[in-house]
Amino acid sequence: MNIIDIIEKKKKGGVLSESEIKYFIEGVTKGTIEDYQISALLMAVYFSGMNIDETTLLTKYMAESGEMLDLSDISNSIIDKHSTGGVGDKITLIFLPLMAASGLYTAKLSGRGLGHTGGTIDKLESIPNFKTNLSIEEFKNKVKTHGTAIAAQTLDLAPADGKLYALRDVTSTVDIVPLIASSVVSKKIASGANHIILDVKYGKGAFIKTPQEAQKLSEIMVEIGKRLNRNICAVISSMDRPLGRAVGNSVEVQEVIEFLKGNKEDDLKEITYALCKKAFEKSGRTEGDEYLDELISSGKALEKFKDIIEAQNGDSSVIDDYTKFPKASITYEVKSPKNGFVTDIDALKIAKACKNLGAGREKKSDKIDYSAGIYLTRRYSQAVSKGETIAIIYTNKENSVKDAENLILSAYEISDKKPSTINIVYKIID
Amino acid sequence: MNIIDIIEKKKKGGVLSESEIKYFIEGVTKGTIEDYQISALLMAVYFSGMNIDETTLLTKYMAESGEMLDLSDISNSIIDKHSTGGVGDKITLIFLPLMAASGLYTAKLSGRGLGHTGGTIDKLESIPNFKTNLSIEEFKNKVKTHGTAIAAQTLDLAPADGKLYALRDVTSTVDIVPLIASSVVSKKIASGANHIILDVKYGKGAFIKTPQEAQKLSEIMVEIGKRLNRNICAVISSMDRPLGRAVGNSVEVQEVIEFLKGNKEDDLKEITYALCKKAFEKSGRTEGDEYLDELISSGKALEKFKDIIEAQNGDSSVIDDYTKFPKASITYEVKSPKNGFVTDIDALKIAKACKNLGAGREKKSDKIDYSAGIYLTRRYSQAVSKGETIAIIYTNKENSVKDAENLILSAYEISDKKPSTINIVYKIID
Repeated sequence: MNIIDIIEKKKKGGVLSESEIKYFIEGVTKGTIEDYQISALLMAVYFSGMNIDETTLLTKYMAESGEMLDLSDISNSIIDKHSTGGVGDKITLIFLPLMAASGLYTAKLSGRGLGHTGGTIDKLESIPNFKTNLSIEEFKNKVKTHGTAIAAQTLDLAPADGKLYALRDVTSTVDIVPLIASSVVSKKIASGANHIILDVKYGKGAFIKTPQEAQKLSEIMVEIGKRLNRNICAVISSMDRPLGRAVGNSVEVQEVIEFLKGNKEDDLKEITYALCKKAFEKSGRTEGDEYLDELISSGKALEKFKDIIEAQNGDSSVIDDYTKFPKASITYEVKSPKNGFVTDIDALKIAKACKNLGAGREKKSDKIDYSAGIYLTRRYSQAVSKGETIAIIYTNKENSVKDAENLILSAYEISDKKPSTINIVYKIID
Repeated sequence: MNIIDIIEKKKKGGVLSESEIKYFIEGVTKGTIEDYQISALLMAVYFSGMNIDETTLLTKYMAESGEMLDLSDISNSIIDKHSTGGVGDKITLIFLPLMAASGLYTAKLSGRGLGHTGGTIDKLESIPNFKTNLSIEEFKNKVKTHGTAIAAQTLDLAPADGKLYALRDVTSTVDIVPLIASSVVSKKIASGANHIILDVKYGKGAFIKTPQEAQKLSEIMVEIGKRLNRNICAVISSMDRPLGRAVGNSVEVQEVIEFLKGNKEDDLKEITYALCKKAFEKSGRTEGDEYLDELISSGKALEKFKDIIEAQNGDSSVIDDYTKFPKASITYEVKSPKNGFVTDIDALKIAKACKNLGAGREKKSDKIDYSAGIYLTRRYSQAVSKGETIAIIYTNKENSVKDAENLILSAYEISDKKPSTINIVYKIID
């Protein structure tokens, strides 16, 4: 077998066999296939596609290309949740304490990743002393004792995916459905949980632009997961506007705490509850909204969040004292240019503004300013008056304020007519 | 400008601009674009194509990526001839003395290349002491003094093509018409001749399989050449069966000498004369077959071949004494298994047999055995009797004889009915 024949076969529209896919992924992992051959094959896949059998095999061999986490000694019912990425996406931080307060196990390994704002790990690290670099033993022990743990993905999980992803990023082969699907699912397979809840976003602030594309991708991921013996589903939701009011790192954690204290933004609630209910269902339980509301109003979920922070060495006093979070030297209020109703807030523009303020990173080595971010004081469908504050900028970079203000102003669409309320969950694929 | 955007554009079916193509070729030449990005773009070109404007610009910048030979101080009418490659293809060695005997200038730089048998340079080197490593000054001086010269392409002509070709070979992106066309024409543009005669082959022994593909490729190459101010044409011919009777190196040179002595194989004559007449036309002359016959029967062409050999330090006594060529230790006669007529001789099988006998190379560093080769004693449409010799094997590799015999036997198709004579020139694109 040789890679040139495999490239030729896919180029001509052929279906790759199991042994060909295995050969390819092993070659990627060991470095015996050259990068220029990998990228040629990836581009051929863009045009010729991969059917569900090929995509499943690709996922399987990618998952098996490195360590496979075994969590079966903790429980035979462990939940993993994965978001394809959004703006203001702090859902994981609400989901985990709700699950743990329900008595369900979750185990969350999270990449640090690049993006306009930090990932979940970065957000948590805005809590003083919060430790995310856990060894596998620590990670598993905490899941066992506290019901959940969240750690930076330092393990060599699905290394073939890491190599492929790095190459896709620089060869314009990111937007290829079977490759996206296998990338997401292979890491989840290697992470060891048996219930997988996917939070798939589409819209301006997501890399998938339409609900149709999101549905197609979700259907494929769910099918692959099932074929690889996982209890998997996908909740598809809109990412046209930022999730909640806070975008950044410490501001998002504060919004999580507020949520758990009962100040629930509608969109955060809609999507988190949808994910929780799917998790209940996967675990053979039947609780619904009332139960989740009760976990919050009783303080149980907030108590669990405190427990998680303390379990990972963090300073849980932040829950009652937000001044303990890193604080930006500059606070700047963006004012509405006119009277009307907010009919749109472009998530991508808000994300770009946030990154410029210091909340994201461009290279893996870049340092994040946890205090930087944006808080949207006026949200979709709310009334605004000319001169009223619509958003607050937090930053330590004085020269980034003006650009951020302009981006925020261009992100806000303010019109005369109050828009109708819209549900953001589009569909659930199970 | 960046290469990822260029890949993306071509992937989505876009037309690359002049500045994008220039950026790409400069990046390839300087090594500032990574191989994995180049191969991704090449694969995108396979699927999305390139229009004639893009292909012309690609050719232009590839030609300009290295040295550009200037032959204008010799004459403003210099002919270059290029074959896309075939089995038993010794046409150049007949064409050059005929041109020189006609008083026309030809300047032939030839790659050593890989293949089942050696290239033109290898064939010439089977003549004792023949020198093909000429400096540019030597090369030009010989063209000026003798009307022609043939040298190994040691110059850095169109280095971007060299890099792209090496990559295409290992990424299954060879069979892409705009890339083949720009590869061929860019080297001819850089070689400095103003009249370019392309000898385009299709069939079993060529990399292009059908006359339709050959025509498409020829039309594109001719159009590019014209747009780049060259007087260019293409003669398309069949390469299903070997050209002439000899396949190898010294055996082919002997067949060339025989031709120039008047023993002209029909197919060699048909194609060589077609090329010569196009060259006359390009040079504003009108001579035809009779004139060419006369150049041979008068001994002028053979005299010119002797002159070429001597000009490049070769031992011209080989012309009258074939024993001066390298001699194989083994001569083996392949016998016909039955009575009938030769209705086909598969060129590719003959070529493979030849390579196994030692006549070709796999790696650039491989040494060629000039004495190895095959002589077809029975050709297409000739009658054969059972037990009669149909081919002679020459080699120094005893253990390759049996395989070669089997390949030759499977290459010959012998049937009861005498087949009709077929012209091998399919079309001329001008």
